[in-house]
This record gives sequence, structure tokens and C-alpha cells, in this order.
Amino acid sequence: MTDEIAKPGLEGVIAGDTAVCCVDQGELLYRGYSISDLAGNVCFEEVAHLLLYGELPAKARLDSFRREVESYHGLPAAVVETIRAMPEAVPMMDVLRTAVSMAGHFDPVKGNTLDDLRRRSVWLMALTADVVAARYRLKNGKEPVAARPGMGHAERLLHMCHGRPADATSARLLDLTLVLYAEHEFNASTFTDRVIASTESDMVSAVVGAIGALKGPLHGGANEKAMELLSRFRDAAEASAWIADTLARKQKVVGFGHRVYKHGDHRAHILETQMRQLAAEKGRQDLVAIYDAIKNPMVTKEKPIYPNVDYPCGLTYYLLGLPLDLYTPLFVCSRITGWCAHYIEQSQNNRIYRPLSRYTGPARRPVPPITARA
Amino acid sequence: MTDEIAKPGLEGVIAGDTAVCCVDQGELLYRGYSISDLAGNVCFEEVAHLLLYGELPAKARLDSFRREVESYHGLPAAVVETIRAMPEAVPMMDVLRTAVSMAGHFDPVKGNTLDDLRRRSVWLMALTADVVAARYRLKNGKEPVAARPGMGHAERLLHMCHGRPADATSARLLDLTLVLYAEHEFNASTFTDRVIASTESDMVSAVVGAIGALKGPLHGGANEKAMELLSRFRDAAEASAWIADTLARKQKVVGFGHRVYKHGDHRAHILETQMRQLAAEKGRQDLVAIYDAIKNPMVTKEKPIYPNVDYPCGLTYYLLGLPLDLYTPLFVCSRITGWCAHYIEQSQNNRIYRPLSRYTGPARRPVPPITARA
Repeated sequence: MTDEIAKPGLEGVIAGDTAVCCVDQGELLYRGYSISDLAGNVCFEEVAHLLLYGELPAKARLDSFRREVESYHGLPAAVVETIRAMPEAVPMMDVLRTAVSMAGHFDPVKGNTLDDLRRRSVWLMALTADVVAARYRLKNGKEPVAARPGMGHAERLLHMCHGRPADATSARLLDLTLVLYAEHEFNASTFTDRVIASTESDMVSAVVGAIGALKGPLHGGANEKAMELLSRFRDAAEASAWIADTLARKQKVVGFGHRVYKHGDHRAHILETQMRQLAAEKGRQDLVAIYDAIKNPMVTKEKPIYPNVDYPCGLTYYLLGLPLDLYTPLFVCSRITGWCAHYIEQSQNNRIYRPLSRYTGPARRPVPPITARA
Repeated sequence: MTDEIAKPGLEGVIAGDTAVCCVDQGELLYRGYSISDLAGNVCFEEVAHLLLYGELPAKARLDSFRREVESYHGLPAAVVETIRAMPEAVPMMDVLRTAVSMAGHFDPVKGNTLDDLRRRSVWLMALTADVVAARYRLKNGKEPVAARPGMGHAERLLHMCHGRPADATSARLLDLTLVLYAEHEFNASTFTDRVIASTESDMVSAVVGAIGALKGPLHGGANEKAMELLSRFRDAAEASAWIADTLARKQKVVGFGHRVYKHGDHRAHILETQMRQLAAEKGRQDLVAIYDAIKNPMVTKEKPIYPNVDYPCGLTYYLLGLPLDLYTPLFVCSRITGWCAHYIEQSQNNRIYRPLSRYTGPARRPVPPITARA
């Protein structure tokens, strides 16, 4: 027993070192590159390569990396059958948890050298996209379609879901969200991934745990919840009334606030700009009006709370015509790269995570015989 | 970026409060009861009730609790088929990870009240035993057998594995290991479970993550590794030569040392006493001689390192005729109760786990155009 003070949620506690990512002066950097510089200038595969190998690829390397991703597409039949056997109501995040775990039994990469771990990461990147697309189609009564070569990852993901070529705007915006979601140092799912890695367990186990963590509405589930919120209101006036009431009750609003960003999340700003253009193209300014009706009082109140990336992401995915059930799974298809980079980093310089706890239970007591118990 | 000092593996850091368990003066207490008082005096179901409900059950309550466990036995057909579809070489811990995740889609308990969470915990206790037994039989070309009512949990687990009544010694000793393994505050798998719970994700997701963490050889995998070590030697002389060499090289020995117990693990002592009796009954003092040949130099050297519970557990399970592949999964069948108690505790007073990291990567740098990359 100890009486030192516990820190709820380890807030403010440095739980380890990382060279993958940091937040520098309020801005997210992936291996030294700011998210503002990356977004719009590089595609998701370049970010995946950066996270896994430490550097942005040159053209020839990007081409070979893309071919490697492509080579891993295609689910083992047993995984498809497992997905098929799941009841229709099973949430897509639960499907991913089970299907990735099942696919782990058919891991095409053997060994655990640094090179093997990077190859396994690329396989997992292809796998998560395959699972999301296969389930999406099976749920809609259609068979999974094979990935076609020569496409970008976002474009291919949309193609595998819908069974037809994606329009350029949809592919570009999905790619942007994958870039923005790829990595964010010691968030709860990545921390889960590193704790599992620290026992010297395998990469699939770590990623399956991370999927379970990302599912939580306080974490990745927030992009779905943000869109659910916007869907509740018929117009901006209704949204304004709701937010006034919510602020008066001092209640939290999903999609706003971030433990690391106290003065706003650059990713939200980048995505919001694109989302506004998209809404204009689609003629859905009515939704943007609801979006702003909630946002404006949040950012102008005495103690402003800024939107995080999940707030504009929910509406972006909605405008792209993606079903709500896919929002957090698409986050997985991106963050899988950050999780794998952290798994690799943890495994190369490991110390098992084994913190202490502060005891708050009953004092030591003798075991009563069963006849003397209440 | 921050330059405060990180603590590798959060050693010595208090990561939260718990009323489930503590280590008091070097001894493990479950909700105030010392493990020395519990072991041999209560059965695993009493411990499970204690961990989940906070108190040891009176006789009538124990009976109803046992009936509740029994009522949850029996795997959904889809889970059996999923297990059947796994390649034979898949390790049992990976089978558990996938099968528990799959069974989650058929969770018989609805809702998330405190009562629902306790019922889901009891279901998971039955489920993990069912999965282990079903896979054990399927791998040996036999169909799973149903659980029979009126047995203790350990006895039933053996019965479901072997398809015939267990002998009293085996049931008693397996029960003892389940009691000893049930709970140990913020170990790596329980910490994983709490981090996942802290995102407000579901109990199955948390437990699946914990299984992945327990699999690691630095954690639950140690009982298997300890027995693998003992199996390497033909006699005590070979073991003595090996340990002398290992100590001279200052290498670690699996099954020895524990971050929390610096002066020995009571659980190891309790189990070792029983293991010695069992070995005498079975006429396997040769194995005990190898066991002691490694242990004695470890505990008598200048800086002694004591065995943890995994060291005698490996040999105990071996003497009970259990296959190596079951050792860590049996740990799951026990620790599932601790994980669930911690999930419930975390969910009743939650703060998301979101620590910080110390950045060690490249300084901020501009994004080079793809044509300018090396």
C-alpha cells in the first residue's frame, strides 16, 4: 500500500519516449514534418512510409511501397466466412476486432526482424481496408470485390466498398482524413498498443487491443458521435437552442476539446476548410449552418473549447455519402500505421509497462468460514 | 515537446486507484483477504464472487453463483466453427483472443448497468473455460463436450477438456492455481484492460486486449517458458551447470523476479509446497531436483532473485499432465475475473488514460517535394 497521489488517466505523466511524432507549439509533427505541411502535399501511403520507415519516400520507393501494399490485399477465405457468420447488427468496430484477430492466424509475414515487422505493418494496412470493405459489402448483400492495382489507398478503399471507381473528390478527401488520422503519439489506443507490445506479445495482439480502445466513444468513436449530434437538428436554430442549453448545464460536447491541444487542433482547421468546399459543391450549406451553430458558441465563450479533428470529420464523411458505421473503422484504416510504428519502436527498446496502483479497499481482514458469512 | 524525464514502463508510477487488490507488506490481498488465508480455504468461485461483488459469498449465494456460471456454458455454433477454421498450429492464446472476440457478437447479457457488467463477467468466466476446452478437444480430433452441472469450475474445466471426470488431486490443484492467478492489481494485462475501459469501450474489447497482453512471454507466457526451461535438462547436474553459466553472464532467468515483490512471491511459496507433494505422489522427484537446481543458486546468491508464481506453476501443470499450450490459457480462465472486476471499477469512476510522451525524433523540417527526396 502506498499513499502517494495517483494521477487520474495519467494526465501530464510522460509514459515513454517516441521518435514517431510530437506536438510542437500546439502543432502535430510526424517525424518532424508538420501536419499543415503534409496535408494536401503528400498522400496517405507517403505518410505510412514516413511513419514506418522514418522518411518520406522518393518516387521509385513510393511506387514499390504501393506495390507491396497491393500484394497483401485479399482476405483468407476463413476470414470472409467468419465475417459472414457475424450477426448483422454487430458494429463494424467489433467486426474489425474479430476479423483482424482471425486474420492473424494466417499472417503472411513470418519472423520478427525489423524488416518483418515493417512488412507485417504493411500487410495490416491492406488487411484493415479489406475487412472494412468486405463487411460493408456483405452487410449489403454483395460479395467482396478484389482490389485493383494502380490505385491510391483511399481510392482503392472506396472502390472495394462500392464496387465502382470512386470520384476524384471523394478519394482526395478520404485520403486527407487518412493523412490527418494516421498518428498522434500516446493517445489511448496507441498507448494500449504499446502496453501490449511491452509484454513481448505479437503485433496482431497489440493492434487488436488498440482497435478495442479506439472503439470507445471517448476516443475514436467521437467522429460518429459528432455526426449523430449534427443529425439531431432540423436547422441551425434548433442547434443553437441546444448548444445554449448544453453550455448552461456545463455539459461536454462531443467533438470539442482535446487533452493535448488547449488552443485548437490544426487538423480540425485543415479538414474544416475542405469540408466547407465539399458542402458548397454538394449544396449542403444547411448542414454547415448547423455545424457552425454549435461551433461558434463553443469557440467564442469565455473559456473557449475548440473542435478536434473528429468534429469536421463526421460531417466530411457524411457529405461523402459514407454510412455512420464506417467512420471509426476508417480511422482504424489510417491509425493502423501509427500503431504499427509504435509497436516497432516499443519492441526495439522495451521495458514492460507495469505501473502501481493506490489502494482504496478494505483493510486486511481474516477469512470467515463460509457458515459465518452474511 | 517536453524534456521532463520519462519513466520506462511506468515503474513506480501510480496509475490509478483500486479497491480490488493490493500488495500489503509483500503479501497479495484480494479485497482485504490475504492470499495465504484464501489459498486452500476457499475455491475459485468464491474468489470470483469476492472480486466481482466485493465480498465472499455465504453458502446459498455460492450455490446460486455456481448455477449462474453453469447457465452460461455452451459456445454459440459460430464460435465453434471459427475455432475449427483456425490452422492447427495457431497458439491457444491466439485462439482465445479470436474466439472471445467472436463470442462477443453473441453476448447473452444486454445493457451496461453494474448488474449487467457483473453478469457479463460471469459469462466471460464460463466462456474462457469453454473456449480452452473446445479448442483442446478439436485439436485432438474430438468434438467439444457439454459442461455438466454440479461441479466446481476447475473440475468442470478438466472434465470438458478430457471428456471424463477429473481426479480429485488434479481438480484441487487446478483450483488452487486459479485462486492464485485471479488478480494482481495493475499488471500489464489488467492495465491494458483498464486503458481500453477508460475510452468507454465495452468489456469484451477490454478483455480481448488483456488476453493479447497476457500472451507476452514477459507476462503470462512465463509459466510456459518456465516449464520449457525445466524440460531442457536431463538431470539436476545439467541444470546446475546451466544456471551457473547463466548467472556468470548476468542473464535473466524466466520465472524469477517480480517488479512488485522484491523479497519473494507468497503465491510461489504456497504453490511450491503443493507441487512438491504432487511430485512425490507421481514419483517425479527427478523434476523437482531440476527445479531446485535452478532455484537454489537464484535465492542464495548475493542479490537473491526469488521465484514468482509462474515458476512452480509450470511444473505443477506438467505434473497434472496438461499440455504446455494450455498453461497461459488457464491463467486467462482465472485472471478473467480480475480483469472484469477492474473493468467494472474503471467504468464506475472513469478518466481516459492519455499520458504524454517525450520526443526523441528529428527536429521540425520542411516537406521536400517528391523529386528532391533521397
